[in-house]
Amino acid sequence: MVSRNCSLRFPWRKVPRPMDLQSYLTEVNTLVDRALDRWLPGQKLKPGIIHQAMRYSVFAGGKRLRPVLTIAASESVGGTQGKALPAACALELVHTYSLIHDDLPAMDDDDFRRGRPSSHKVYGEAVAILAGDALLTYAFELLVRESLNLGSDAGLVSSQVQELAQAAGTAGMIGGQVLDLEAEGRKVDLAGLEEIHHRKTGALLKAAVRLGAIAAGAGWEELTDLTAYAEALGLAFQIKDDLLDVEGDSAKLGKPVGSDAAKDKSTYPSIIGLEQSKLMLAEQTETALKLAGHFGDKGRILAELALFVRDREF
Amino acid sequence: MVSRNCSLRFPWRKVPRPMDLQSYLTEVNTLVDRALDRWLPGQKLKPGIIHQAMRYSVFAGGKRLRPVLTIAASESVGGTQGKALPAACALELVHTYSLIHDDLPAMDDDDFRRGRPSSHKVYGEAVAILAGDALLTYAFELLVRESLNLGSDAGLVSSQVQELAQAAGTAGMIGGQVLDLEAEGRKVDLAGLEEIHHRKTGALLKAAVRLGAIAAGAGWEELTDLTAYAEALGLAFQIKDDLLDVEGDSAKLGKPVGSDAAKDKSTYPSIIGLEQSKLMLAEQTETALKLAGHFGDKGRILAELALFVRDREF
Repeated sequence: MVSRNCSLRFPWRKVPRPMDLQSYLTEVNTLVDRALDRWLPGQKLKPGIIHQAMRYSVFAGGKRLRPVLTIAASESVGGTQGKALPAACALELVHTYSLIHDDLPAMDDDDFRRGRPSSHKVYGEAVAILAGDALLTYAFELLVRESLNLGSDAGLVSSQVQELAQAAGTAGMIGGQVLDLEAEGRKVDLAGLEEIHHRKTGALLKAAVRLGAIAAGAGWEELTDLTAYAEALGLAFQIKDDLLDVEGDSAKLGKPVGSDAAKDKSTYPSIIGLEQSKLMLAEQTETALKLAGHFGDKGRILAELALFVRDREF
Repeated sequence: MVSRNCSLRFPWRKVPRPMDLQSYLTEVNTLVDRALDRWLPGQKLKPGIIHQAMRYSVFAGGKRLRPVLTIAASESVGGTQGKALPAACALELVHTYSLIHDDLPAMDDDDFRRGRPSSHKVYGEAVAILAGDALLTYAFELLVRESLNLGSDAGLVSSQVQELAQAAGTAGMIGGQVLDLEAEGRKVDLAGLEEIHHRKTGALLKAAVRLGAIAAGAGWEELTDLTAYAEALGLAFQIKDDLLDVEGDSAKLGKPVGSDAAKDKSTYPSIIGLEQSKLMLAEQTETALKLAGHFGDKGRILAELALFVRDREF
């Protein structure tokens, strides 16, 4: 059984948490980092600069939330960690490419990412654009090649390629980014806000869960439950983000609170109020826990992840 | 039999050519344009701006050389045009995305493409970057979904995804673009020049031919011949490009001659001389014709395309 009031932590932050989730996250992070290091082109391979730029952003201290979801979802339906690893890595490459392109001067114009200079500050804009392009391209290559190497069925792999492309494309992540650009400097309503988040971050989180489940050969009913779980988790994640910007501790967050309000950005608290936002977070967490519960003990990590998302302080 | 001294033409330029190649090109262009129009997201689909930007560049009067090669290669081994159509369209989307990103201010900074304002001049840099990303992403989605819809084997489709990603990635097109950036303002030798072209344009032309052949279920020997054909054709294409910049007619070319020399750019004539370049063009054409000949009457279009590349005046 899952302890509902425990304080969880990811290994890269110092917050008390029960040993088992931490061990799991450490194990998965190590597994994913080793696989990415093995599968990405070596940085001495010609032309070296592009492979260095790809690795610079991939190994930049990311939380690996998407790979963790992929592998946990695979295990929830009886799959192995190994067989879900190509999809887990592909998801992380797509996420990383999106961050490189988001940081470009023409987009969010961010000079720093996770405390380090962003790709275009280190390698210049041209190489940063190409490094993003290359990571997106390589995500599909890695997914197919390594999945087939591990003996996955070509039909399942084809489904994974389609899911990944849909989630990353204009119906998903890219579409969300465009809606976000369009929303700049004007108020959106709750439906508008949900659509942005649903596409911009929700689609890839959902794909992370679904690709893991597909790798493990999940049945239709299992896939439906896991999809609903991922949707609830993605929504909870975003509401919590907005709440932390109002009520968080800037020392723990590692960034000042109140930045959304300062930028006049539409958030859950600014649209539906603080109390209603908290209620919504509780509801979405409840939904995610209930769905994780369908998988019994195998769904325990998914449940703990939902609690982590609710209780995190950063 | 192929007439070796005929003057061929693509339907978008006014040079005399025998009717059959022109009919073929018109037919394939119509087929590809209709498929792209049917398969790309509608421009009213939300968010409209990104779908409009994708279509603006896809329907910008491109020559569709890659789709023509895909379909001709498929037919050379007894395949249908229809079954190669998803791969043909995917190749064109990847080609189009590369042009949008190449034109960006941080890259080649070109305000015009095919006589029209380039994507970032019309939609702004942010949307142009995202439109490129979206076309690359959608290429994989379209390739898999439409190939499976047409009853292609998932194993073959997986191979096609891998081939396309490799050709478009750092071992191919993106790698060539990086080498080209690195070569700016300095002389390269023949080996250096060949590596740039081999990756920057050759890899995608080769993938165009191979994906068509794979769609048609080509055997190992056929695939080997077609790969060698594509390599010869790609090299001939580039040598001819460089020759036209020295000896071409600027009225027919639609751009001034001598621009390579003015930019101090390394070209075949500048490295090995004009006569040697012409000899090399003749040799590569000979090789391509010989390989096309292995496919008898079914290889006739491939042979005519090799002659077109040699004899074109634009």
